[in-house]
Amino acid sequence: MNSLTIALDVMGGDKGPLITIPAAIMAVNHLPSLSLILCGDQHTIQDILHKNNALNHPRLSICHTTQVVAMDEKPSTAMRSKKDSSLRKAIDFVEQGKASACVSAGNTGALFATAHFVLKTLPGVERPALISSLPTRDKDNHVFMLDLGANVFCDADILYQFGLMGAVMAEQVDGVCKPRIALLNMGEEDIKGSDHIKLAASQLAQNPDINYVGFIEGNDIFNNKADVIVCDGFVGNVALKTCEGVATLVYEKVKSVFEKNVFAKILGQFLAPTLKKLFKSLNPDQYNGASLIGLRGIVVKSHGNANKKAFFTAIMEAVKEVERQVPEKIKDSLEQGLIQRP
Amino acid sequence: MNSLTIALDVMGGDKGPLITIPAAIMAVNHLPSLSLILCGDQHTIQDILHKNNALNHPRLSICHTTQVVAMDEKPSTAMRSKKDSSLRKAIDFVEQGKASACVSAGNTGALFATAHFVLKTLPGVERPALISSLPTRDKDNHVFMLDLGANVFCDADILYQFGLMGAVMAEQVDGVCKPRIALLNMGEEDIKGSDHIKLAASQLAQNPDINYVGFIEGNDIFNNKADVIVCDGFVGNVALKTCEGVATLVYEKVKSVFEKNVFAKILGQFLAPTLKKLFKSLNPDQYNGASLIGLRGIVVKSHGNANKKAFFTAIMEAVKEVERQVPEKIKDSLEQGLIQRP
Repeated sequence: MNSLTIALDVMGGDKGPLITIPAAIMAVNHLPSLSLILCGDQHTIQDILHKNNALNHPRLSICHTTQVVAMDEKPSTAMRSKKDSSLRKAIDFVEQGKASACVSAGNTGALFATAHFVLKTLPGVERPALISSLPTRDKDNHVFMLDLGANVFCDADILYQFGLMGAVMAEQVDGVCKPRIALLNMGEEDIKGSDHIKLAASQLAQNPDINYVGFIEGNDIFNNKADVIVCDGFVGNVALKTCEGVATLVYEKVKSVFEKNVFAKILGQFLAPTLKKLFKSLNPDQYNGASLIGLRGIVVKSHGNANKKAFFTAIMEAVKEVERQVPEKIKDSLEQGLIQRP
Repeated sequence: MNSLTIALDVMGGDKGPLITIPAAIMAVNHLPSLSLILCGDQHTIQDILHKNNALNHPRLSICHTTQVVAMDEKPSTAMRSKKDSSLRKAIDFVEQGKASACVSAGNTGALFATAHFVLKTLPGVERPALISSLPTRDKDNHVFMLDLGANVFCDADILYQFGLMGAVMAEQVDGVCKPRIALLNMGEEDIKGSDHIKLAASQLAQNPDINYVGFIEGNDIFNNKADVIVCDGFVGNVALKTCEGVATLVYEKVKSVFEKNVFAKILGQFLAPTLKKLFKSLNPDQYNGASLIGLRGIVVKSHGNANKKAFFTAIMEAVKEVERQVPEKIKDSLEQGLIQRP
């Protein structure tokens, strides 16, 4: 494997450098070909590197920045006035070809707006999409879902493009052969849903390179009926966050059962690791990171509330996308897909 | 309490009269003021009543019908060609004032289309909505959510009306004083979401009779931050079914943990009742029934897969809505709300 460089916004996220820098150290130790550029306040970074005995690590370099994008800052304000922020610099490195990808746990809206503005979309891509994977009942499979919130509304053409982009992710990142593409809808029947969903369905069905399997309902997201589920960002965001809400609710209720008496407490200890893992996997952007795809560069978003392990996982996701050349493959697929489209 | 009559489509649902008729017997035995009209095939009904020792029950009457709407039948076909179906007759009784409400576990699309066509909307109501309640982390509270799938897309005016209708349900059915109304969105900030959601937010905020509490995200549906959550039918349907999907997934995974060995199996027995109840409550239309509101009559939909207890619960939901005069209250609220609207 060739060496690769990834830029990190170490100041982003609720816990900022306290978790991003230890995750970075973990990543370079894990992968000898990986170099990381740590964008953020030099003094803070050096301090934490020092405490972790990694001050002079040969594959960790620092890019000092003077600004930080706050978690609640308006994306437009961040873009206009935070040109020396850690978030912006990490993206700039990708744009300049000095890094192959960037990873941030910072302000989602600001990250997307800045990445879109700086990196631009690939030829033929109208809108970038936020994609992540969810677990399925079959533990060896998971399902990619997009868009998870980068776009409020998506017309048929955009949904069609998302189908092609999702297929590339499933093929390249997960190695799925002929991934099954579905559209999220309020029923499985052809007559269900809005006009733009029906049109996107017909476009996907007519592309011989796409294994389009039809409409899918919310209750089937986890039933391993598709490898990629396409929807607009509003619906995807609500579905993803509803998953998180249900998982949290169930976790609390199950936990409360275990707190009823001593016997139950012992049972709880027995079950705790399995349950924790399950509930974490239902909060995918906290666990896996989510990617903004369709841009001329790789941008991985880790959850604002990410811990060291989650941020490390997001870095590894970026590595995978670099190795599999996801943007190039999406570009090829889109070019081919636009020819195929009726 | 005055006597009241409710019409049942006993042929609807996956198990049809085998569960609807025992549920009907349970309901009249539970509530001495309740009379039920059983719409369906007379021979089948008499047979099941006989087997349940209820053939001559004074408060169970039969309306013989010759047609059944299939579960997968197109709504338009059902409306046109199934005028002597159990589903249609049950609605007709409401329209004729011979029943105060109807309950069906049959074809959802056909039920809505027929109810809308026969009963018509209340003055000022543009579209009826499907509403149901979901559990919250606070076990004494639940949250009403609408629309759950009666309408694909809803503009600002319709979302505003749903806010008023949902408030009436929370006040009248649940006795909530000044119910908190929220709009489901992809972020809590004012700038998030589509133009029609922002417009609906401003309309709700300006109505002094409505306790509008702002936008809510999917992960907060269950956090007791609102008594009523408003969204369009597409989003509501996806959110509701995603809940069901997550709950099923978690249930299976938790169950599989209990199947690992003998010790785990014993633990499972201990937890089973609590878990089952929890997971059932996350599939609300199976558990509580859902109501189609905004019409000049009360229509309660029980899940196609409902068992006796679930269909009984749906009948009791209809009783509650009759007693609290939900349609009249919605009519009053809408009249007032249209005056209040900026």
